[in-house]
Amino acid sequence: MTITPPALSVFETLESEVRSYCRSWPAVFDRAQGSYMYDEDGHTYLDFFAGAGALNYGHNNPVLKRALLDYIERDGVTHGLDMGTTAKRAFLESFQNTILRPRDLPYKVMFPGPTGTNAVEAALKLARKVKGREAIVSFTNAFHGMSLGSLAVTGNSMKRAGAGIPLVHGTPMPFDNYFDGTVQDFLWFERLLEDQGSGLNQPAAVIVETIQGEGGINVARAEWLRALADLCERRDMLLIVDDIQMGCGRTGPFFSFEEAGITPDIVTLSKSISGYGMPMSLTLFKPELDVWEPGEHNGTFRGNNPAFVTATATMDTYWADGQMEKQTLARGEQVEQALRAIVEEHPRLGGTYRGRGLAWGMEFTDKERANKIARRAFDLGLLIETSGPQSEVVKLLPPLTVSPEELDEGLRILARAVRDTV
Amino acid sequence: MTITPPALSVFETLESEVRSYCRSWPAVFDRAQGSYMYDEDGHTYLDFFAGAGALNYGHNNPVLKRALLDYIERDGVTHGLDMGTTAKRAFLESFQNTILRPRDLPYKVMFPGPTGTNAVEAALKLARKVKGREAIVSFTNAFHGMSLGSLAVTGNSMKRAGAGIPLVHGTPMPFDNYFDGTVQDFLWFERLLEDQGSGLNQPAAVIVETIQGEGGINVARAEWLRALADLCERRDMLLIVDDIQMGCGRTGPFFSFEEAGITPDIVTLSKSISGYGMPMSLTLFKPELDVWEPGEHNGTFRGNNPAFVTATATMDTYWADGQMEKQTLARGEQVEQALRAIVEEHPRLGGTYRGRGLAWGMEFTDKERANKIARRAFDLGLLIETSGPQSEVVKLLPPLTVSPEELDEGLRILARAVRDTV
Amino acid sequence: MTITPPALSVFETLESEVRSYCRSWPAVFDRAQGSYMYDEDGHTYLDFFAGAGALNYGHNNPVLKRALLDYIERDGVTHGLDMGTTAKRAFLESFQNTILRPRDLPYKVMFPGPTGTNAVEAALKLARKVKGREAIVSFTNAFHGMSLGSLAVTGNSMKRAGAGIPLVHGTPMPFDNYFDGTVQDFLWFERLLEDQGSGLNQPAAVIVETIQGEGGINVARAEWLRALADLCERRDMLLIVDDIQMGCGRTGPFFSFEEAGITPDIVTLSKSISGYGMPMSLTLFKPELDVWEPGEHNGTFRGNNPAFVTATATMDTYWADGQMEKQTLARGEQVEQALRAIVEEHPRLGGTYRGRGLAWGMEFTDKERANKIARRAFDLGLLIETSGPQSEVVKLLPPLTVSPEELDEGLRILARAVRDTV
Amino acid sequence: MTITPPALSVFETLESEVRSYCRSWPAVFDRAQGSYMYDEDGHTYLDFFAGAGALNYGHNNPVLKRALLDYIERDGVTHGLDMGTTAKRAFLESFQNTILRPRDLPYKVMFPGPTGTNAVEAALKLARKVKGREAIVSFTNAFHGMSLGSLAVTGNSMKRAGAGIPLVHGTPMPFDNYFDGTVQDFLWFERLLEDQGSGLNQPAAVIVETIQGEGGINVARAEWLRALADLCERRDMLLIVDDIQMGCGRTGPFFSFEEAGITPDIVTLSKSISGYGMPMSLTLFKPELDVWEPGEHNGTFRGNNPAFVTATATMDTYWADGQMEKQTLARGEQVEQALRAIVEEHPRLGGTYRGRGLAWGMEFTDKERANKIARRAFDLGLLIETSGPQSEVVKLLPPLTVSPEELDEGLRILARAVRDTV
Repeated sequence: MTITPPALSVFETLESEVRSYCRSWPAVFDRAQGSYMYDEDGHTYLDFFAGAGALNYGHNNPVLKRALLDYIERDGVTHGLDMGTTAKRAFLESFQNTILRPRDLPYKVMFPGPTGTNAVEAALKLARKVKGREAIVSFTNAFHGMSLGSLAVTGNSMKRAGAGIPLVHGTPMPFDNYFDGTVQDFLWFERLLEDQGSGLNQPAAVIVETIQGEGGINVARAEWLRALADLCERRDMLLIVDDIQMGCGRTGPFFSFEEAGITPDIVTLSKSISGYGMPMSLTLFKPELDVWEPGEHNGTFRGNNPAFVTATATMDTYWADGQMEKQTLARGEQVEQALRAIVEEHPRLGGTYRGRGLAWGMEFTDKERANKIARRAFDLGLLIETSGPQSEVVKLLPPLTVSPEELDEGLRILARAVRDTV
Repeated sequence: MTITPPALSVFETLESEVRSYCRSWPAVFDRAQGSYMYDEDGHTYLDFFAGAGALNYGHNNPVLKRALLDYIERDGVTHGLDMGTTAKRAFLESFQNTILRPRDLPYKVMFPGPTGTNAVEAALKLARKVKGREAIVSFTNAFHGMSLGSLAVTGNSMKRAGAGIPLVHGTPMPFDNYFDGTVQDFLWFERLLEDQGSGLNQPAAVIVETIQGEGGINVARAEWLRALADLCERRDMLLIVDDIQMGCGRTGPFFSFEEAGITPDIVTLSKSISGYGMPMSLTLFKPELDVWEPGEHNGTFRGNNPAFVTATATMDTYWADGQMEKQTLARGEQVEQALRAIVEEHPRLGGTYRGRGLAWGMEFTDKERANKIARRAFDLGLLIETSGPQSEVVKLLPPLTVSPEELDEGLRILARAVRDTV
Repeated sequence: MTITPPALSVFETLESEVRSYCRSWPAVFDRAQGSYMYDEDGHTYLDFFAGAGALNYGHNNPVLKRALLDYIERDGVTHGLDMGTTAKRAFLESFQNTILRPRDLPYKVMFPGPTGTNAVEAALKLARKVKGREAIVSFTNAFHGMSLGSLAVTGNSMKRAGAGIPLVHGTPMPFDNYFDGTVQDFLWFERLLEDQGSGLNQPAAVIVETIQGEGGINVARAEWLRALADLCERRDMLLIVDDIQMGCGRTGPFFSFEEAGITPDIVTLSKSISGYGMPMSLTLFKPELDVWEPGEHNGTFRGNNPAFVTATATMDTYWADGQMEKQTLARGEQVEQALRAIVEEHPRLGGTYRGRGLAWGMEFTDKERANKIARRAFDLGLLIETSGPQSEVVKLLPPLTVSPEELDEGLRILARAVRDTV
Repeated sequence: MTITPPALSVFETLESEVRSYCRSWPAVFDRAQGSYMYDEDGHTYLDFFAGAGALNYGHNNPVLKRALLDYIERDGVTHGLDMGTTAKRAFLESFQNTILRPRDLPYKVMFPGPTGTNAVEAALKLARKVKGREAIVSFTNAFHGMSLGSLAVTGNSMKRAGAGIPLVHGTPMPFDNYFDGTVQDFLWFERLLEDQGSGLNQPAAVIVETIQGEGGINVARAEWLRALADLCERRDMLLIVDDIQMGCGRTGPFFSFEEAGITPDIVTLSKSISGYGMPMSLTLFKPELDVWEPGEHNGTFRGNNPAFVTATATMDTYWADGQMEKQTLARGEQVEQALRAIVEEHPRLGGTYRGRGLAWGMEFTDKERANKIARRAFDLGLLIETSGPQSEVVKLLPPLTVSPEELDEGLRILARAVRDTV
């Protein structure tokens, strides 16, 4: 594919230097459908980034689109603060019937504002209020958001430096497999908790991702998550699972923690909860934690009703039975095979891969290689991103609705991109 | 109007206790158009709250709706992170040509995430980074948002308590007229700055609303704002105007600070920037402050492209000439006359009123009265809210697109509601 | 007097750049007695600085010296941690009988470590523990010490910068007369407390000096202190009087707050409590505040028993009757007259003076003049220091035991020093 | 020995509940000499606590006493702020000639105030100022003092809770042997430092005790200290050795880190530096770190000249040659043999012991046993304390000047006390 230099001028002259993806992908996108994006020059891109996990059902999914258009056309309430609306009621009922009840999850639902970081801020506030303590434990290479509360439990040092104030009240602990299995799980964490002289402020809560997406597709084992849940219970800490990137079916089941058989005290959801890429987020918690005063946390865009409409449609369409989960796991096997083949094709590159469901990462001895592969993939018409503290991991997040053929196409481009960097 | 008790059950059983507006307005809203909302039982409400200022152009404004439907129907990119898209380019170009250039405003534009608090967090981060200092000065009864950074510069004690950690790095100063004009403006603030022994940490920035919406419709005089801007310049502090609620034409001109003739260093916009009630926000700053590293602040929903589409439509439709500003000021006079009449009708209630453009507040000696009036207005089919630290101020934020007849209707209901509480 | 350059070499080569007084007074002192110090070159200096208030009874006061020598000679316990010792018991009994009981002060006594900042740290800890709040209100130009807790409530910006971390949890309020009487006392403070939207974190306590010694001999009026005590009571804040520099008789009565007729909740004492210049400090508090766990605050040098011995001797010698207080007030009048004469002698210098007991300050229009006067006084054999945020105040703290003749001598040198700077 | 209940009344009625040692040792001490203390009822106690390490040269050491009496008798300056005095010069010269030069240590000397926590506060301030970072790494079970800066890097949870504010800017790391040798040294620490996504704020400095006295006589190996020094150098962190309890010869050499052959960037000394139990402390640092402004850190009792006099005498008497070090190591062997015998005598108690020089700890399976032993030892006339997070370690700190016979006497009492608790 030949790309003519796009007219980025207004982006370059007017938009802040903070912009980032538009630097990796120097195109001006115009339309999108399913697994594909199209730029204004007529180029087509297979999208294996899926809005960083916000587009699990593909771009402009036709079922959701129909529901959305109908709602807008009939002048359904668009902006509802936290008023009761028919769209919100339909969402709550579907969420209860399709998601919570079948999984025996007792959660109350909070609309904390439409972004992931709103959901994390609310979760941290609530945990601190309930326990009357300030300290939160997070994990190495965690990513929870950019507002100050969330940033304080995020690992990335460049992003932390952006705060402009010292980030406090958070202590990092080693994520699963941080020492390649050579150190017993939670050895350090549990010892700090049991030692009255350790200097660790007693945490109100632990916040964890089951798979660290931004951190490099680091996959926590089910037994590690169970041991963490057990530790939290024994040591009187709330367990917060940040399922913003890995929830909504990304790893197979609706919640990424289902496989481990745990019930976190608090759960955050966002990204793909609306399904259509529209801002929406939820903070879920056990009923006994619902100690909020009315209005103690608020926000203008908590009631993004068009997002409720598409969210309801995702549940009715994809989560009424176990089909979606099965399909995701099957697609995941397809990805795994392809990654294995790539790694085996280049024994000298020292490639490794890991993932679950449709979240996968591939890493090479040469940490620079991931960026080269992503850039080459873009030239070949495939959108993939890198993650990890040094951008050393090629990250694959295709839509869950990707067809086997599309998946195959993308994985072949990926294989070629790897080959072209050798 | 007779209201039958609405079926709130799933809201009550499943939604968190933090919910708030749905308690004041026990209805389930279904549709909305222009200045009106409709509940599922067929009741009609004249909306003088306008999404807390997020619906300056009315509910489901037909011009914006058409643009939005077209965009969705043609599968325009919905979710774009911070990628270049045609919708974003059109927005940037319109914003530059319609808003910035005619006002000689030199700002760079940052998409910090789609909510107001995202915009404030980004503004504070940037100010701290530029100045290398942590301290921020805010004002009594300020409201800037619910994430930790914004909450630390917000006044409301109930909301601050929700943080669960001590909120630091912020110092409040008296807003304009805090002492009813008996104390010279900035007497305390300037003295603290000039006294090397005052104990005030040298601030990186001052954050201010030109009219405090949540704080009780407290209106800063133009000369106070000018003196503040001057103080900031003399004392090497950045001036941040949080124009989230009062910008986008609420007070007449597009930016609420235009009347004062000042050019803040940083400006935050949100609420009505998309015009359709869809989440979107901007942080604007002088080019020399654009010291961000690429990706140093990020977020999943920075590129809410449907919001860019409606935002562009608002500018092309309403801001290409000075018509909107004139109309808002005219409507404001209509409100002022009505409030004067209400106050004069009830000399014993000790009523006062204040406002600018279409942001108005009315207060009575009995601080409980405001809530009674709002409740009674709801029964009479008018949605109005209260604000101020004790909810003592009746707050009027009708859509800017309200017709003189609708305005008259609402003001007559208001007058009756006041009468009914006597 | 002609001063030959002293051999400062080891001070210059080995001691840290942080050293300060030795720069103003380039002498090597060897002996001291009563109101005089003697350097190794045989020069004599009349000391009107008195160890920054640590030598209220003069250098090496013979009565205390005798008690100290006896104690050391008979091998009394020197270092006692917080063990019970006969010396400590004697001190406690004298303190109770001579100081507390006659003044109807109900305090418990804590030995928080031997320095003033230890006493302040303990006071702040206790206040925060009792109230369960973090925030402390201090005053402009306050000085409470150099460890992090005390430094956070100290005003001087150079000293604050030394912390290397943002100092938080403290908010400054205007000290008495900060606006030359043009603003009603506590207008700002009380308004912040009563306004639920002010943004002030509810304080656990207020810490105040009755006369700010380091801050420039700023004298709080008795009615201001009474109003402050009243405000603290009404608003549920503890009142901490830091009497480290102004206690032990410096202003006349043993405690500087006696004149105002208030009973602070917590009082800190240090400097002249041992009387001999040996490190010792006390934190006093109302019995109901004594919620400490055993050992919750500790320190190696809490039991400096030789200091207890001299402290006991000061009380038995000077505080068994009202003689000391009367004498200090009389000497104070002598100082006041002299300062008035100096000011009147030089109407063009715009001199002013203020003080109480034997703590006095003199200031001139030209803020540089104070340092010139102090330097010139040193050349003339008088040790005086400057204070205030810009060192603009000549500060007089002669020993309380100074004779009228010595006082006269010093004041004449001062008058000459002023004259010599004109 | 029979003890009659001592008359503790004024301690109980007037002194704060925070008092602690006087509860373990219910006696009123009157005199002390060498290794012995005497209470007012004529009982004699062999003191193996030595002022928590402040009395390395015994109580009222006759050589120091003579120097002290001479100084006081001749009216040497007692209180000198940071003025140059002959006593201070003599101290500085001795310290340079006897301590620093023979060890090739390049340090500048700061007098930060007379207590250990003053020295630590100054060290932390300086490290933060030099590096421009806030974070400090400390170790599990560290003890550095009770003022807020020092407390934030102290491990004990009860003492931390006393702060009344969240203690921040410190992160604990595992001290040597925290996992019984099963985990590679600094595995966690180094990984956090090298991982850009770890979430650890880049530390300005690391603060460490070579042997944790309060933490339970935890002895760091020389190779661990060397590896730590190396880590600090590679990772641009300052190394602060807090030698307050273990310096001044306690472990054999003057500085406890000499054995490891490292040169810390900053060293704190206090406790036994004056030698006579009088408050004094030092902060030492490499000359290139001396970035203090004059007066940026100050304090009333920095110039405790009698302490300088006795400190000078300790150096001239005990440190002019290597005798003291040899003797301490020999005495240490005597202690070690006795502890081994005790442990072997009671195989069922699961006793272990550790130490170096004359700092020793003994621990048993039953964590309560240590307190029983200490209480029984008191009844038998031996003063020993416990340490460790649960007071589970019997701690021995006899004076360095203890004679072999006294040592033997004390160790026999200890053996009997152990026997009596079985």
